[in-house]
Amino acid sequence: MAFEHSIRLRVAFSDTDMAGFAHFSNYFRYMEAAEHDFFRSLGYSIVSHIGGRDYGWPRVNVECQFANPLYFEDEFEVRLLVDEVRSRSIRYLFYFSKLSEHAPPIHVGQGSMVTVCVVRDPESGAIMPVSLPAEIAALIQPAPRDLLDANQAANGRRGSNTAR
Amino acid sequence: MAFEHSIRLRVAFSDTDMAGFAHFSNYFRYMEAAEHDFFRSLGYSIVSHIGGRDYGWPRVNVECQFANPLYFEDEFEVRLLVDEVRSRSIRYLFYFSKLSEHAPPIHVGQGSMVTVCVVRDPESGAIMPVSLPAEIAALIQPAPRDLLDANQAANGRRGSNTAR
Amino acid sequence: MAFEHSIRLRVAFSDTDMAGFAHFSNYFRYMEAAEHDFFRSLGYSIVSHIGGRDYGWPRVNVECQFANPLYFEDEFEVRLLVDEVRSRSIRYLFYFSKLSEHAPPIHVGQGSMVTVCVVRDPESGAIMPVSLPAEIAALIQPAPRDLLDANQAANGRRGSNTAR
Amino acid sequence: MAFEHSIRLRVAFSDTDMAGFAHFSNYFRYMEAAEHDFFRSLGYSIVSHIGGRDYGWPRVNVECQFANPLYFEDEFEVRLLVDEVRSRSIRYLFYFSKLSEHAPPIHVGQGSMVTVCVVRDPESGAIMPVSLPAEIAALIQPAPRDLLDANQAANGRRGSNTAR
Repeated sequence: MAFEHSIRLRVAFSDTDMAGFAHFSNYFRYMEAAEHDFFRSLGYSIVSHIGGRDYGWPRVNVECQFANPLYFEDEFEVRLLVDEVRSRSIRYLFYFSKLSEHAPPIHVGQGSMVTVCVVRDPESGAIMPVSLPAEIAALIQPAPRDLLDANQAANGRRGSNTAR
Repeated sequence: MAFEHSIRLRVAFSDTDMAGFAHFSNYFRYMEAAEHDFFRSLGYSIVSHIGGRDYGWPRVNVECQFANPLYFEDEFEVRLLVDEVRSRSIRYLFYFSKLSEHAPPIHVGQGSMVTVCVVRDPESGAIMPVSLPAEIAALIQPAPRDLLDANQAANGRRGSNTAR
Repeated sequence: MAFEHSIRLRVAFSDTDMAGFAHFSNYFRYMEAAEHDFFRSLGYSIVSHIGGRDYGWPRVNVECQFANPLYFEDEFEVRLLVDEVRSRSIRYLFYFSKLSEHAPPIHVGQGSMVTVCVVRDPESGAIMPVSLPAEIAALIQPAPRDLLDANQAANGRRGSNTAR
Repeated sequence: MAFEHSIRLRVAFSDTDMAGFAHFSNYFRYMEAAEHDFFRSLGYSIVSHIGGRDYGWPRVNVECQFANPLYFEDEFEVRLLVDEVRSRSIRYLFYFSKLSEHAPPIHVGQGSMVTVCVVRDPESGAIMPVSLPAEIAALIQPAPRDLLDANQAANGRRGSNTAR
């Protein structure tokens, strides 16, 4: 059973803003890219037709903390850890690290996302929360607590340059 | 002194995703639009040149909770409340309400944003947290506690259809 | 019958890129915003359910010429002119003008878009080009030739600062 | 000397719209991604500091024709061909092909982009068109005419399902 996944991305010119940084709203697109690639790595699409039902995964809440900026053409890793699996929802953690050839990765931010499993009623079009399909639930489990704690500690230390 | 601001927006076709909703990453663009219009309402731009310094406001952390979807062409209000003013940062709350001509507004989500005041070193280009410029600090104060509490309570009640 | 429509927009921070301009891909979002507001001004949505059919308007081709940049918080007008109405498609022209309180508008670019009327087969999901619904065709006509020529001439002159 | 470059991309969920397609404005982000990767393949960044000058490449005009839709998670190739190199500008052609493991690529669209070489005046901030830096000009040449013609013919044939 899977509890982690990583992808590598590069900051596109269209991701930058006039301050020269990757605009903060893009971090949520980056998280989503990691989530969807996680599902593909399990042999599924986030847009799944299973047992005659159309499953979707709308977000219940999301958040992100920014420790250091990402600039144009920066290569970075988005590491997904499964934090919690409930009957109808999954909570993910995400760690952003800027990569470089000649230096250790730099922590640039971290986030979380709670996403709920729904099906769409074919008649009314309404969205109804449902239990995770058994096929998916059989593949995903929370990351071990010590792995979650280690990530939290490491990134909390490295990300301590916030300014409040 | 100001502590609240509202804007009205409409969901653009390019904001929607294949599920038919406004993609969740856009809520952060909507929050930012409210923040920047708040500054304009005070006579300033979020990109300010004050006293020979170039001020910017990068985000320290942001989060959003989603209670109900927004669809194409939905009109909605983003209401900004100032939650906290520190020497070098401001914390905002945002309430999203879907508007309709013939029914009361529907709570669709709420978020928060902590943004830190910085200047860019003209030599090195480095970003340094600094105190809010006095001109801005003189214009912004936290919303009264009972207003914040009332919003929290009202939207907590109406937004209780989350599915965990 | 209608052949022109204008909207006013303001460049959002998230529209800018590290060069400080509104990223060129946004001009197509701006054109689309004008097109969709044109349909609303006629009492329709671009996503229409007419006579039991779901109509859509995918693009066949689009183009844009850029004469002057748009910057953060610039207010600008997007003027739509109907260039041609065919049985299954419409061709629009778009003129972008930067507005200011104390000076005449500045031509910043112009574009065009050919969009084709389709319905989705409810069984297969396939997209099929169809004739414009009579209700829409009855409302839209090409702009008078002299108006199109006048715009072309005016903007050709003002937009002649390209550098090839 | 180089005259072509290809990248592979996958349609992100946030690229889709409520019609289920990759929103057409994204094709311009895809073209730009190919252009910037082309420059990296030559050992340069599109944001170059050469000989003490900051070079940029704003667009003069861009266009795109759409032959077939791209859907969520579709893998596709963007092939760039250099069409023309002038003293101060470059014209690129782009061909979009949807990839699949078990079938030949499907032509989904093609576009072009004229981009002009500029430097920013360090005093005034104004943008001035200039000759391509010799280092870049020495690396890029137009694709052979028969290659351009072959692409045009092949994609013209395959892309003939437009509906005007």
